[in-house]
Amino acid sequence: MVCASLVQNPANLGSLCRTVEAFRLESLVLADEAIVQHNAFRNVAVSAHLWQPIVSCAIESLPQWFVKQQQRGYEIIGLSVSSKAEPLPQFAFPKRSVLVLGQELTGIPVDLLQKCDRTLYIPQFGMVESLNVQTAAAIAIYEYVRQQMHKDKI
Amino acid sequence: MVCASLVQNPANLGSLCRTVEAFRLESLVLADEAIVQHNAFRNVAVSAHLWQPIVSCAIESLPQWFVKQQQRGYEIIGLSVSSKAEPLPQFAFPKRSVLVLGQELTGIPVDLLQKCDRTLYIPQFGMVESLNVQTAAAIAIYEYVRQQMHKDKI
Repeated sequence: MVCASLVQNPANLGSLCRTVEAFRLESLVLADEAIVQHNAFRNVAVSAHLWQPIVSCAIESLPQWFVKQQQRGYEIIGLSVSSKAEPLPQFAFPKRSVLVLGQELTGIPVDLLQKCDRTLYIPQFGMVESLNVQTAAAIAIYEYVRQQMHKDKI
Repeated sequence: MVCASLVQNPANLGSLCRTVEAFRLESLVLADEAIVQHNAFRNVAVSAHLWQPIVSCAIESLPQWFVKQQQRGYEIIGLSVSSKAEPLPQFAFPKRSVLVLGQELTGIPVDLLQKCDRTLYIPQFGMVESLNVQTAAAIAIYEYVRQQMHKDKI
Protein backbone atom coordinates (compact mmCIF):
# COMPACT_ATOMS: atom_id res chain seq x y z
CA MET A 1 0.00 0.00 0.00
CA VAL A 2 1.07 3.58 -0.57
CA CYS A 3 0.02 6.23 1.95
CA ALA A 4 -0.03 9.68 0.33
CA SER A 5 -2.21 11.57 2.83
CA LEU A 6 0.62 14.08 3.37
CA VAL A 7 1.12 14.80 -0.36
CA GLN A 8 -0.69 18.00 -1.36
CA ASN A 9 -0.14 18.68 -5.08
CA PRO A 10 -3.00 17.16 -7.16
CA ALA A 11 -0.68 16.59 -10.17
CA ASN A 12 1.76 14.64 -7.97
CA LEU A 13 -1.17 12.58 -6.62
CA GLY A 14 -2.48 11.93 -10.14
CA SER A 15 0.92 10.71 -11.37
CA LEU A 16 1.27 8.60 -8.26
CA CYS A 17 -2.15 7.03 -8.83
CA ARG A 18 -1.09 6.05 -12.36
CA THR A 19 2.11 4.44 -11.04
CA VAL A 20 0.36 2.62 -8.17
CA GLU A 21 -2.20 1.25 -10.64
CA ALA A 22 0.48 0.21 -13.16
CA PHE A 23 2.04 -2.01 -10.50
CA ARG A 24 -1.34 -3.15 -9.18
CA LEU A 25 -0.70 -2.28 -5.56
CA GLU A 26 -3.33 -3.07 -2.94
CA SER A 27 -4.40 0.50 -2.25
CA LEU A 28 -3.55 4.18 -2.44
CA VAL A 29 -4.32 6.19 0.69
CA LEU A 30 -5.32 9.84 0.24
CA ALA A 31 -6.24 12.51 2.80
CA ASP A 32 -9.44 13.20 0.85
CA GLU A 33 -10.77 11.10 -2.02
CA ALA A 34 -12.41 14.19 -3.56
CA ILE A 35 -8.99 15.15 -5.00
CA VAL A 36 -9.56 12.64 -7.83
CA GLN A 37 -12.12 15.09 -9.26
CA HIS A 38 -9.44 17.80 -9.61
CA ASN A 39 -8.43 18.56 -13.21
CA ALA A 40 -4.71 18.53 -12.41
CA PHE A 41 -5.15 15.04 -10.94
CA ARG A 42 -7.21 13.72 -13.87
CA ASN A 43 -4.92 15.10 -16.57
CA VAL A 44 -2.02 12.94 -15.39
CA ALA A 45 -3.87 9.96 -13.86
CA VAL A 46 -5.24 8.95 -17.33
CA SER A 47 -8.23 7.22 -15.69
CA ALA A 48 -6.04 5.02 -13.44
CA HIS A 49 -8.22 6.18 -10.49
CA LEU A 50 -11.14 4.24 -12.01
CA TRP A 51 -9.22 1.00 -11.49
CA GLN A 52 -7.07 1.73 -8.45
CA PRO A 53 -8.58 0.98 -4.99
CA ILE A 54 -8.39 4.25 -3.04
CA VAL A 55 -8.76 4.63 0.73
CA SER A 56 -9.33 7.94 2.58
CA CYS A 57 -7.40 8.78 5.74
CA ALA A 58 -7.01 12.35 6.99
CA ILE A 59 -3.60 13.40 8.32
CA GLU A 60 -4.84 13.61 11.92
CA SER A 61 -6.08 10.00 11.72
CA LEU A 62 -2.78 8.58 10.42
CA PRO A 63 -1.40 7.49 13.84
CA GLN A 64 -4.45 5.28 14.52
CA TRP A 65 -4.43 4.05 10.90
CA PHE A 66 -0.76 3.05 11.25
CA VAL A 67 -1.58 1.02 14.38
CA LYS A 68 -4.46 -0.70 12.61
CA GLN A 69 -2.22 -1.72 9.70
CA GLN A 70 0.50 -2.93 12.09
CA GLN A 71 -2.09 -5.13 13.79
CA ARG A 72 -2.91 -6.57 10.33
CA GLY A 73 0.77 -7.48 9.89
CA TYR A 74 1.91 -4.51 7.78
CA GLU A 75 5.18 -2.69 8.34
CA ILE A 76 5.01 1.11 8.18
CA ILE A 77 7.90 2.36 6.05
CA GLY A 78 8.60 6.09 5.78
CA LEU A 79 10.30 7.52 2.68
CA SER A 80 12.50 10.13 4.29
CA VAL A 81 16.00 11.57 4.46
CA SER A 82 16.10 11.17 8.27
CA SER A 83 19.42 10.12 9.83
CA LYS A 84 18.21 6.61 10.66
CA ALA A 85 16.94 5.91 7.14
CA GLU A 86 18.27 2.84 5.26
CA PRO A 87 19.38 3.15 1.61
CA LEU A 88 16.78 1.77 -0.83
CA PRO A 89 19.06 -0.62 -2.77
CA GLN A 90 19.87 -2.45 0.49
CA PHE A 91 16.35 -2.26 1.93
CA ALA A 92 14.59 -5.64 2.16
CA PHE A 93 10.84 -4.99 1.87
CA PRO A 94 8.38 -7.23 3.70
CA LYS A 95 5.53 -8.34 1.43
CA ARG A 96 3.10 -6.40 3.62
CA SER A 97 4.53 -2.91 3.36
CA VAL A 98 2.90 0.50 3.74
CA LEU A 99 5.08 3.13 2.03
CA VAL A 100 4.46 6.50 3.68
CA LEU A 101 5.25 9.58 1.57
CA GLY A 102 6.05 13.01 2.98
CA GLN A 103 4.66 16.40 2.12
CA GLU A 104 6.33 18.27 -0.74
CA LEU A 105 9.34 20.26 0.62
CA THR A 106 8.82 19.45 4.31
CA GLY A 107 8.60 15.64 4.23
CA ILE A 108 7.13 13.51 7.02
CA PRO A 109 6.57 15.42 10.32
CA VAL A 110 8.77 14.15 13.18
CA ASP A 111 5.88 12.82 15.28
CA LEU A 112 4.69 10.61 12.39
CA LEU A 113 8.24 9.59 11.46
CA GLN A 114 8.65 8.21 14.99
CA LYS A 115 5.59 6.02 14.43
CA CYS A 116 7.12 4.38 11.33
CA ASP A 117 8.67 0.95 11.84
CA ARG A 118 11.52 1.78 9.46
CA THR A 119 12.58 4.59 7.13
CA LEU A 120 14.30 4.45 3.77
CA TYR A 121 16.02 6.97 1.50
CA ILE A 122 17.06 6.97 -2.16
CA PRO A 123 20.81 7.59 -2.57
CA GLN A 124 21.32 10.71 -4.70
CA PHE A 125 24.40 12.54 -5.95
CA GLY A 126 23.20 15.85 -7.40
CA MET A 127 23.37 19.49 -6.35
CA VAL A 128 19.59 19.94 -6.12
CA GLU A 129 18.20 18.77 -2.82
CA SER A 130 15.94 15.90 -3.74
CA LEU A 131 13.71 14.05 -6.15
CA ASN A 132 10.08 14.98 -6.67
CA VAL A 133 7.87 13.02 -4.25
CA GLN A 134 6.02 11.03 -6.93
CA THR A 135 9.29 10.23 -8.74
CA ALA A 136 10.86 9.02 -5.48
CA ALA A 137 7.72 6.99 -4.74
CA ALA A 138 7.83 5.37 -8.22
CA ILE A 139 11.44 4.31 -7.66
CA ALA A 140 10.66 2.82 -4.22
CA ILE A 141 7.58 1.03 -5.63
CA TYR A 142 9.66 -0.43 -8.48
CA GLU A 143 12.27 -1.70 -5.98
CA TYR A 144 9.49 -3.32 -3.91
CA VAL A 145 7.99 -5.00 -7.01
CA ARG A 146 11.45 -6.09 -8.23
CA GLN A 147 12.11 -7.81 -4.88
CA GLN A 148 8.72 -9.54 -4.85
CA MET A 149 9.22 -10.79 -8.46
CA HIS A 150 12.64 -12.12 -7.48
CA LYS A 151 11.19 -13.92 -4.42
CA ASP A 152 8.43 -15.48 -6.53
CA LYS A 153 11.06 -16.91 -8.87
CA ILE A 154 13.04 -18.65 -6.09
CA MET B 1 23.18 9.62 -20.73
CA VAL B 2 19.47 10.10 -21.25
CA CYS B 3 18.19 11.00 -24.70
CA ALA B 4 14.84 12.79 -24.49
CA SER B 5 14.69 14.42 -27.93
CA LEU B 6 11.42 12.62 -28.64
CA VAL B 7 9.72 13.75 -25.40
CA GLN B 8 7.46 16.76 -26.04
CA ASN B 9 5.77 17.82 -22.80
CA PRO B 10 7.85 20.54 -21.05
CA ALA B 11 6.66 19.40 -17.59
CA ASN B 12 7.81 15.84 -18.31
CA LEU B 13 11.17 17.21 -19.48
CA GLY B 14 11.51 19.39 -16.37
CA SER B 15 10.81 16.45 -14.04
CA LEU B 16 13.22 14.34 -16.03
CA CYS B 17 15.93 16.99 -15.74
CA ARG B 18 15.51 16.99 -11.94
CA THR B 19 15.84 13.20 -11.83
CA VAL B 20 18.85 13.08 -14.19
CA GLU B 21 20.59 15.74 -12.06
CA ALA B 22 19.75 13.95 -8.79
CA PHE B 23 21.63 10.89 -10.04
CA ARG B 24 24.38 13.00 -11.64
CA LEU B 25 24.18 11.44 -15.06
CA GLU B 26 26.61 12.54 -17.76
CA SER B 27 24.12 14.44 -19.90
CA LEU B 28 20.51 14.99 -20.84
CA VAL B 29 19.82 15.22 -24.57
CA LEU B 30 16.95 17.48 -25.68
CA ALA B 31 15.61 18.27 -29.16
CA ASP B 32 15.94 21.97 -28.37
CA GLU B 33 17.68 23.47 -25.33
CA ALA B 34 15.33 26.47 -25.42
CA ILE B 35 12.69 24.34 -23.66
CA VAL B 36 14.46 24.99 -20.33
CA GLN B 37 13.10 28.56 -20.50
CA HIS B 38 9.50 27.26 -20.54
CA ASN B 39 7.58 27.91 -17.30
CA ALA B 40 6.18 24.36 -17.17
CA PHE B 41 9.75 23.06 -17.37
CA ARG B 42 11.13 25.44 -14.72
CA ASN B 43 8.29 24.86 -12.24
CA VAL B 44 9.21 21.20 -11.87
CA ALA B 45 12.96 21.26 -12.61
CA VAL B 46 13.62 23.34 -9.43
CA SER B 47 16.80 24.80 -11.01
CA ALA B 48 18.29 21.35 -11.76
CA HIS B 49 18.91 22.59 -15.34
CA LEU B 50 21.50 25.02 -13.96
CA TRP B 51 23.63 22.08 -12.82
CA GLN B 52 22.78 19.38 -15.34
CA PRO B 53 24.87 19.20 -18.56
CA ILE B 54 22.39 19.44 -21.43
CA VAL B 55 23.09 18.56 -25.08
CA SER B 56 20.88 19.51 -28.06
CA CYS B 57 20.05 17.00 -30.77
CA ALA B 58 17.05 17.41 -33.08
CA ILE B 59 14.97 14.32 -33.87
CA GLU B 60 16.17 14.18 -37.50
CA SER B 61 19.79 14.14 -36.31
CA LEU B 62 19.31 11.24 -33.87
CA PRO B 63 20.47 8.45 -36.27
CA GLN B 64 23.88 10.13 -36.80
CA TRP B 65 24.10 10.99 -33.08
CA PHE B 66 23.47 7.31 -32.17
CA VAL B 67 26.31 6.22 -34.48
CA LYS B 68 28.65 8.80 -32.94
CA GLN B 69 27.89 7.53 -29.42
CA GLN B 70 28.32 3.89 -30.51
CA GLN B 71 31.77 4.81 -31.88
CA ARG B 72 32.58 6.28 -28.43
CA GLY B 73 31.68 2.93 -26.86
CA TYR B 74 28.11 3.65 -25.76
CA GLU B 75 25.23 1.23 -26.15
CA ILE B 76 21.95 2.72 -27.38
CA ILE B 77 19.13 1.38 -25.22
CA GLY B 78 15.52 2.12 -26.14
CA LEU B 79 12.81 2.22 -23.44
CA SER B 80 9.95 0.60 -25.31
CA VAL B 81 7.24 -2.02 -25.18
CA SER B 82 8.43 -3.60 -28.46
CA SER B 83 8.28 -7.39 -28.74
CA LYS B 84 12.06 -7.82 -28.51
CA ALA B 85 12.40 -5.70 -25.36
CA GLU B 86 14.06 -7.23 -22.27
CA PRO B 87 12.46 -6.79 -18.81
CA LEU B 88 14.21 -4.11 -16.73
CA PRO B 89 14.88 -6.22 -13.59
CA GLN B 90 16.89 -8.71 -15.71
CA PHE B 91 18.56 -6.09 -17.89
CA ALA B 92 22.34 -5.76 -17.30
CA PHE B 93 23.30 -2.18 -18.14
CA PRO B 94 26.74 -1.44 -19.57
CA LYS B 95 28.41 1.48 -17.77
CA ARG B 96 28.26 3.49 -21.01
CA SER B 97 24.54 3.50 -21.70
CA VAL B 98 22.36 5.93 -23.63
CA LEU B 99 18.74 5.52 -22.50
CA VAL B 100 16.44 6.61 -25.34
CA LEU B 101 12.93 7.71 -24.34
CA GLY B 102 9.92 7.66 -26.64
CA GLN B 103 7.36 10.31 -27.39
CA GLU B 104 4.35 10.51 -25.09
CA LEU B 105 1.63 8.08 -26.31
CA THR B 106 3.40 6.94 -29.50
CA GLY B 107 6.81 5.88 -28.13
CA ILE B 108 9.97 5.45 -30.24
CA PRO B 109 9.30 5.40 -34.04
CA VAL B 110 10.12 2.04 -35.66
CA ASP B 111 13.02 3.37 -37.76
CA LEU B 112 14.78 4.69 -34.63
CA LEU B 113 13.93 1.59 -32.63
CA GLN B 114 15.77 -0.50 -35.23
CA LYS B 115 18.87 1.63 -34.66
CA CYS B 116 18.92 0.85 -30.90
CA ASP B 117 21.38 -1.84 -29.78
CA ARG B 118 18.87 -3.19 -27.26
CA THR B 119 15.42 -2.34 -25.91
CA LEU B 120 14.01 -2.70 -22.41
CA TYR B 121 10.56 -2.53 -20.85
CA ILE B 122 9.26 -2.15 -17.31
CA PRO B 123 6.99 -5.06 -16.29
CA GLN B 124 3.56 -3.69 -15.35
CA PHE B 125 0.37 -5.31 -14.14
CA GLY B 126 -2.32 -2.64 -14.30
CA MET B 127 -5.34 -1.94 -16.48
CA VAL B 128 -4.07 1.43 -17.75
CA GLU B 129 -1.69 1.08 -20.67
CA SER B 130 1.58 2.41 -19.32
CA LEU B 131 3.59 4.57 -16.98
CA ASN B 132 4.22 8.24 -17.68
CA VAL B 133 7.46 8.63 -19.68
CA GLN B 134 9.36 10.54 -16.98
CA THR B 135 8.23 8.07 -14.30
CA ALA B 136 9.37 5.13 -16.45
CA ALA B 137 12.67 6.93 -17.13
CA ALA B 138 13.23 7.53 -13.39
CA ILE B 139 12.71 3.82 -12.69
CA ALA B 140 15.16 2.78 -15.44
CA ILE B 141 17.72 5.35 -14.25
CA TYR B 142 17.43 4.07 -10.67
CA GLU B 143 17.99 0.48 -11.89
CA TYR B 144 21.09 1.63 -13.81
CA VAL B 145 22.48 3.46 -10.75
CA ARG B 146 21.67 0.51 -8.46
CA GLN B 147 23.63 -1.84 -10.73
CA GLN B 148 26.63 0.53 -10.93
CA MET B 149 26.66 0.94 -7.09
CA HIS B 150 26.58 -2.82 -6.73
CA LYS B 151 29.48 -3.26 -9.20
CA ASP B 152 31.54 -0.63 -7.35
CA LYS B 153 31.10 -2.59 -4.11
CA ILE B 154 32.37 -5.89 -5.57
